[in-house]
Amino acid sequence: MYRTHNCGQLRMSDVGANVTLSGWVQKARDLGGMTFLDLRDRYGITQVVFNMDDNAALCEEARKLGREFVIQVEGKVRERSSKNLNRATGEIEIEATVLKVLNAAKTPPFTIEETTDGGDDLRMKYRYLDLRRPLQQSNIIFRSKLAIETRKYMDSQGFIEIETPFLIKSTPEGARDFVVPSRLNPGEFYALPQSPQTFKQILMVSGMDKYFQIVKCFRDEDLRADRQPEFTQIDCEMSFIHIEDILNTFEGLAKHLFKQMIGVELHEFPRMTYDEAMTRYGSDKPDLRFGMEFVELNDLAKDKGFSVFDSAELVVGICAKGIAETYSNKDMKDLTEWMQRPQIGAKGLVYVKYQQDGIKSTVGKFFSDDDLKAWGEKFGAEEGDVLFILSGEAEKTRKQLNELRLEMGKRLGLMKAGDFKPLWVIDFPLLEWDDETNRFYAMHHPFTSPKIADIPRMLNGDHETMKSLRADAYDLVINGAEIGGGSIRIHDRELQSKNFDLLGFTKEEAEDQFGFLLGAFEYGAPPHGGIAFGFDRLCAVMNGQSSIRDFIAFPKNNMGRDMMIDAPSHIAKAQLKELNLDVTVKPE
Amino acid sequence: MYRTHNCGQLRMSDVGANVTLSGWVQKARDLGGMTFLDLRDRYGITQVVFNMDDNAALCEEARKLGREFVIQVEGKVRERSSKNLNRATGEIEIEATVLKVLNAAKTPPFTIEETTDGGDDLRMKYRYLDLRRPLQQSNIIFRSKLAIETRKYMDSQGFIEIETPFLIKSTPEGARDFVVPSRLNPGEFYALPQSPQTFKQILMVSGMDKYFQIVKCFRDEDLRADRQPEFTQIDCEMSFIHIEDILNTFEGLAKHLFKQMIGVELHEFPRMTYDEAMTRYGSDKPDLRFGMEFVELNDLAKDKGFSVFDSAELVVGICAKGIAETYSNKDMKDLTEWMQRPQIGAKGLVYVKYQQDGIKSTVGKFFSDDDLKAWGEKFGAEEGDVLFILSGEAEKTRKQLNELRLEMGKRLGLMKAGDFKPLWVIDFPLLEWDDETNRFYAMHHPFTSPKIADIPRMLNGDHETMKSLRADAYDLVINGAEIGGGSIRIHDRELQSKNFDLLGFTKEEAEDQFGFLLGAFEYGAPPHGGIAFGFDRLCAVMNGQSSIRDFIAFPKNNMGRDMMIDAPSHIAKAQLKELNLDVTVKPE
Repeated sequence: MYRTHNCGQLRMSDVGANVTLSGWVQKARDLGGMTFLDLRDRYGITQVVFNMDDNAALCEEARKLGREFVIQVEGKVRERSSKNLNRATGEIEIEATVLKVLNAAKTPPFTIEETTDGGDDLRMKYRYLDLRRPLQQSNIIFRSKLAIETRKYMDSQGFIEIETPFLIKSTPEGARDFVVPSRLNPGEFYALPQSPQTFKQILMVSGMDKYFQIVKCFRDEDLRADRQPEFTQIDCEMSFIHIEDILNTFEGLAKHLFKQMIGVELHEFPRMTYDEAMTRYGSDKPDLRFGMEFVELNDLAKDKGFSVFDSAELVVGICAKGIAETYSNKDMKDLTEWMQRPQIGAKGLVYVKYQQDGIKSTVGKFFSDDDLKAWGEKFGAEEGDVLFILSGEAEKTRKQLNELRLEMGKRLGLMKAGDFKPLWVIDFPLLEWDDETNRFYAMHHPFTSPKIADIPRMLNGDHETMKSLRADAYDLVINGAEIGGGSIRIHDRELQSKNFDLLGFTKEEAEDQFGFLLGAFEYGAPPHGGIAFGFDRLCAVMNGQSSIRDFIAFPKNNMGRDMMIDAPSHIAKAQLKELNLDVTVKPE
Repeated sequence: MYRTHNCGQLRMSDVGANVTLSGWVQKARDLGGMTFLDLRDRYGITQVVFNMDDNAALCEEARKLGREFVIQVEGKVRERSSKNLNRATGEIEIEATVLKVLNAAKTPPFTIEETTDGGDDLRMKYRYLDLRRPLQQSNIIFRSKLAIETRKYMDSQGFIEIETPFLIKSTPEGARDFVVPSRLNPGEFYALPQSPQTFKQILMVSGMDKYFQIVKCFRDEDLRADRQPEFTQIDCEMSFIHIEDILNTFEGLAKHLFKQMIGVELHEFPRMTYDEAMTRYGSDKPDLRFGMEFVELNDLAKDKGFSVFDSAELVVGICAKGIAETYSNKDMKDLTEWMQRPQIGAKGLVYVKYQQDGIKSTVGKFFSDDDLKAWGEKFGAEEGDVLFILSGEAEKTRKQLNELRLEMGKRLGLMKAGDFKPLWVIDFPLLEWDDETNRFYAMHHPFTSPKIADIPRMLNGDHETMKSLRADAYDLVINGAEIGGGSIRIHDRELQSKNFDLLGFTKEEAEDQFGFLLGAFEYGAPPHGGIAFGFDRLCAVMNGQSSIRDFIAFPKNNMGRDMMIDAPSHIAKAQLKELNLDVTVKPE
């Protein structure tokens, strides 16, 4: 037997017991006649003592141990003379009588402690060492518990977890698929699912009524900092429901998870239409931990002779409280330059400072103090506040101002850790027009139902009408992060065909790619809808983190590469031949 | 609101209530002035009544409904005059006042009832209709509950569920990988995991201590009747353990699942070495629901002048009870021919019948009645029994006799439904020699540890010695089905290198494919081991079924094809180009 107890288990009540522990050497200290070892496993750390006077040979053995050696120790539990009350086992120690080295260890390339000196690349290459750090372990354990609580709640609500297939069919709609060549069907390919979307709808047609799954999904995207080619979602679908049923059920799930996992009671889940969110915050995922809402100034700022404003579709700003005296001209210049970076692309940044000694503004020569006072009143600005104002094409300007709002929220410490502000954003547009490709795209996905009131306009309207259609689609946003989204689905073959039509599918393409679903709609499809939560994102948001990577046991880097196993990699010629494939690039 | 109750919910206590139900029309009966509908959802069936006298228009509407129409009905619950006590809702019915067709349905291509007239192909193409059948729904719900109970038990034992990646690295060892071309890394491929083997070992090196996962795995095999290219396993790994710890933990899991899911108390999990299982049953997964053990006859049957036996390495048989009088010569001939089919390949089948009127045998002219009586005594045969005897090369003969034993067990009704006989088969060979490719293969996998006592022989032995090495590998067998298997792993770099060496890996190949694991072993790898249960198989065995397909929501056929979505399929040229691939076969 390798151990009678783990390294986090022994207490004062065990004093006198003979025990065996196994674990990793966290550190060793030689103090003259004594050697102290901190022995670590995932449960904790226990101090082990070797005494030169009692057993010189054993003590000498202990002195040879390096960091991260795996050892087994037998000994007696005794009370420590100097206790460490920050550690659960800190009142006791083991007086070692037997020491066995189970495995030696080379010196690790970075320190394995709460904070580490390892850079990202090194930590990803030696992920097995990084995962020994208590912080990383607690992230992975958090994730595991979050899955347990999710399943507990979904089960309590009558949902059945059903596994949908991973080897499915490639469809060009949406993001890029990862594909899998089929050896048994030469020249043909499976695709890995971007989501179980069509299968969960099929499960509704089959009468499963309430489905969920915690499931891996795959997207072959050009990876951004915080995207992973494989990611996990809590995927759900319900039959015979309206939008209220879904929002209530998943509001319940979010409340349950926040309560059980981090002891936070979420109260209010306000609802806001997409249009309202864009107007008030310039974002479909506003962070409601702070206000700083958009105020539109077209009425007060246009037609006063300032050509920049006069030619703008929209003049809009935010009010930052209490920084008029502290933000210097240099600060303002830096902020303007920050807004002018290509990532944001603002042409400039107008400000109005309401200082003790008067109003200062970059547009002071175009507007009178009375004008600027009237602006301030519209914003509810007080002495000490600063207005930041942007102008230009409405949609673009709102997006730029959203960036500024978030930046100012951050700078002014308004995004408080431990403060969680959920929000349902509803009534998304059904379709987005893309000028470049000259076609509509589904804002959510091609199976999303228009709002019932909009169906007649969808079936009979002209091209312009289509741009104004609203969908029964919704996103759950917490602290500015999109936790998940979903929609009521189309369950009628004609309406689904019309939607494919608007999205530029020919009849043949629609039949070829989604014929099974269109067919299923003819054999008694119930009204249904669903939602999916991003599981990785939820882990990060609940822990106040912005990166999902630390909550994934084996994440990939920005090139989609697993640095530890060094994948992807070249495969054997014989494998390619069996798959009837040629690679058209030369190996490096 | 689509419903106030589901179709399995209403009882006598609800009589008088106004309710709304939604569901599918199971069937409709017109009885003169009345129309009765059976309304179905996954929860049950409720009878709905339309009365021509009360509301002729509504009744006419109801008469237009076809099978599988999706409807919503409002009405009052009333007591039925003729009750159906076989149905949970059979004491009440709904007196309909409002009827709304939510979706029409074409006539389904097969009947949607407990038994169906649909063939396999049709049912797979219309899987959404097949899944409406209560039997299929209960299979899927069983699976879902089995996952819940598995997670409950594993969590109670301190295991953490950790998601391992799906996009990993291809390794030529073992079965064929499915591969996934990487667009971002031109000419390179990921592979889908055949199991999370190396990752779970890495998790042990990272100190996660107890890992489990219910996880999809992938194998690109030539599919046999009951194999699927994607399948699910309960995958586990533990650190600081010996073989006993693993067997006890997973015996506990099996007991928990059988108790909770089907109310069966499993008592004894006997253990048998691989050698013993092969000797006594000719199989490493013997069905212990019945005896009919092998008895070897070399001592009694050889050197008596019957050249077939004399030249054989092994003469071995089984005793079938009580069929001497009922099995005719024709039956014996048929059985012999069954044994001679190429799938089994026996040269012939010797029998000895102990009949009331004497002993009858195909080898009567070579052996005296006393000889044959002595055989019978060795078998414990009584009057009425029949011995079946095979001879030849030992290993081959045992395998043939195993087939006969199973066939006779089936014919004689000895494989009783509801009878569950678990068995641990242990001490498997470490390596298998393959004459054709002239190399060793790992019997379990390349990470399996030899038994500690065999390590010196492994490190220093000659080629022949390697064939006799035993591994700390084990399988759980229930009723002749392999539920799962596992092993204690190698955790020492040198031993792992030696094993790769024996398996024919060059140093470079080992480093290229498993360098990360070999590296991990140098930084403090704990002793560890694990097991995986086949989840699909477990579902089938617990339900006394032989096919796993009915326990998979969307199974593939024997060509790895999803008949419903028609995958795999051809993909667009643009996709191939982005992936730097050419297909070397012409599309049909």
